[in-house]
Amino acid sequence: MDNSEATQVMQQLGGQALAAARKMRMADTAAKNRWLTLSALRLRRERDHLLNANAMDLQQARDNGIDPALIDRLELTTARVEAMADGLDEIAALPDPVGRIDDLVYRPSGIQVGKMRVPLGVIGMIYESRPNVTADAAALCLKSGNACILRGGSEAIHSNRAIAACLRRELVESGLPQDAVQLVDQTDRALVGALISAKGLVDIIIPRGGRSLIERIAREATVPVIKHLDGICHVYIDASADLAMATAIAVNAKTHRYGVCNAMETLLIHEEIAAEAIAALAPPLAEKGVEVRGCPQAIAHCGDWLPASEEDWATEYLAAVLSVRVVKDIDEAIDHIARYGSGHTESIITEDYRAGQRFLREVDSSSVMWNASTRFADGFEYGLGAEIGISTDRLHVRGPVGLEGLTSP
Amino acid sequence: MDNSEATQVMQQLGGQALAAARKMRMADTAAKNRWLTLSALRLRRERDHLLNANAMDLQQARDNGIDPALIDRLELTTARVEAMADGLDEIAALPDPVGRIDDLVYRPSGIQVGKMRVPLGVIGMIYESRPNVTADAAALCLKSGNACILRGGSEAIHSNRAIAACLRRELVESGLPQDAVQLVDQTDRALVGALISAKGLVDIIIPRGGRSLIERIAREATVPVIKHLDGICHVYIDASADLAMATAIAVNAKTHRYGVCNAMETLLIHEEIAAEAIAALAPPLAEKGVEVRGCPQAIAHCGDWLPASEEDWATEYLAAVLSVRVVKDIDEAIDHIARYGSGHTESIITEDYRAGQRFLREVDSSSVMWNASTRFADGFEYGLGAEIGISTDRLHVRGPVGLEGLTSP
Repeated sequence: MDNSEATQVMQQLGGQALAAARKMRMADTAAKNRWLTLSALRLRRERDHLLNANAMDLQQARDNGIDPALIDRLELTTARVEAMADGLDEIAALPDPVGRIDDLVYRPSGIQVGKMRVPLGVIGMIYESRPNVTADAAALCLKSGNACILRGGSEAIHSNRAIAACLRRELVESGLPQDAVQLVDQTDRALVGALISAKGLVDIIIPRGGRSLIERIAREATVPVIKHLDGICHVYIDASADLAMATAIAVNAKTHRYGVCNAMETLLIHEEIAAEAIAALAPPLAEKGVEVRGCPQAIAHCGDWLPASEEDWATEYLAAVLSVRVVKDIDEAIDHIARYGSGHTESIITEDYRAGQRFLREVDSSSVMWNASTRFADGFEYGLGAEIGISTDRLHVRGPVGLEGLTSP
Repeated sequence: MDNSEATQVMQQLGGQALAAARKMRMADTAAKNRWLTLSALRLRRERDHLLNANAMDLQQARDNGIDPALIDRLELTTARVEAMADGLDEIAALPDPVGRIDDLVYRPSGIQVGKMRVPLGVIGMIYESRPNVTADAAALCLKSGNACILRGGSEAIHSNRAIAACLRRELVESGLPQDAVQLVDQTDRALVGALISAKGLVDIIIPRGGRSLIERIAREATVPVIKHLDGICHVYIDASADLAMATAIAVNAKTHRYGVCNAMETLLIHEEIAAEAIAALAPPLAEKGVEVRGCPQAIAHCGDWLPASEEDWATEYLAAVLSVRVVKDIDEAIDHIARYGSGHTESIITEDYRAGQRFLREVDSSSVMWNASTRFADGFEYGLGAEIGISTDRLHVRGPVGLEGLTSP
């Protein structure tokens, strides 16, 4: 498919999405929730059909000798279909942000002014192998009154088609426009290019996947993009930290789950507390099997740790690996984060009010924490409900993007 | 200048802006206000110098045989310099949105979560002949903690240089980074192209000017744009309107000021009330010298009115001209607005609760009003303070864009 053919395909999908978005904008909460509930039932009822479609994708992936980690992400199981259906039920239970009026005040002129939340319009979602994103993303986009165009990974095309068919069927049942959910049915790469440059048809692009995919989209898109690239999250243990708290938070931030974007990748420790902090931290980290790579000062306190290279400070391990650096003071910690961080989530552990306030103010990340684990950077934990992604951008929405982030402020 | 030279110029300006933005992000309110106050004094003190610089622009404009309306916009006078300085003092008096924490709540986990407003970063401002925009835009961008790159019209280059020099001189005096305000000092058009595609250096583009300029920018920009194209604003007089109120609002919305984007351009009237409404409205409109172009039904009620053409419904007159259409019901009014409106501001006049609520919900414009004049669509009237523009987009900010709209939510 050449670019002009791709543009033509996207013009058609975009035009249909735009028409559907006009209807979705006015859809009442009851209809949207009915669709979510019926879709959850439909996914459960068609489980075997979904698993068969998924088996075709898995077979193809194995034939193509694809990486086992990717095959794991691609696979649907009975439990995963159930979790996908549960996700829709949970989104049905969330409050509808559309039409909510905030900041209603009387002005000196006598007029009463407020801000009403309205949907963004058409959301273009680009993702890789996990088929559950098809259901999750569609549910969040539609509950917030938008239409969506979904472009999943080509390796998951049979699974995505089967899921999208369930969702579209129930749209008709619920009296909502079927084209509010459209799957880009062809796997041609040119279609991604056409989607991210469909100005006037698509209001926002949300990519989810590996760094290279997201970098390419951010570079080439002319439609605004909400994204995060890496999660190189830091915890900084200040001189005045409560040591028991610091240890508990650092261990939680690293070991609670390894493959997630809000896991700690680098621990910074004030030199005054380094000896005690490392003595307290080394045993639980060793017990959990975490490989620690430290700066020379850190290694001086723990002989078992390996030396860190320059590259370590800029690496999102997503694994049982941690880099540790001893710093002179809070300034050096903030400078380290500015230089190597990815703007995702950073936390300071301190009992010192001024140090805590400085960290909150001076660190430029989407989530900045004080005496909390980076693992709390999550839509549910923040009270936003299910999230479609996490934004490290500053325009429109920052941090976890829930239903509210998919509406206009 | 070819595109690669323009890109190189913009890389340098952008790099300097980025470095300045990092410092501005941390600037305290006192320093920003000191800069505003000193700049206001400086503009007053250098008034003669500014008027001399402006005289060069005016001479050049006259030599080039430029339209007198444009020359009026270009001209600085003692009163206009005074107004520009007053504008800076007023922005100094507005609350600083940076660092404000909203929605601080305790979550069931025990963590306390809030949203802190932070600056957007680097704002690219593209505007036409009015030199006062140089001071207004810089003041709003910097008070909200951002850096700005200003690209004024080439016809105002001498005036803009003189104003920017005043602002930059006082940045140094105030301990703020001088490159927080940079004027694109060359008039080459390729530089606009380079500015609107400076991804990674410029966070947002705000264009102000004629429709063709803004359309070109919206089409070609890869950096997100906050804009409004036209202000084709509607007032709809519903069947159940209070006639005295309807007359007062319609006359105000049309005649309070003609050349502004929030002036009414089309009046829609429910057929049940058309005869009385037109009888009440025709005399005051005639007295103010407003030329009315009506649909056949409207003209049937007032023989003095001219017939409207299809084109009238899609025209922003910005003049003492009004189009009037009689509609069957509120549905026809909402359909008319969806078809011909520009998403700026629309108002319903009604005593009927359901009609008012329907209009607020179903009309998709940045400001939707009930029993109020469209002229209220304004940053000061809404309590947002001075505005850098009005957004008819839905991403990030909608309606008047004040200091808050220049920060991340």
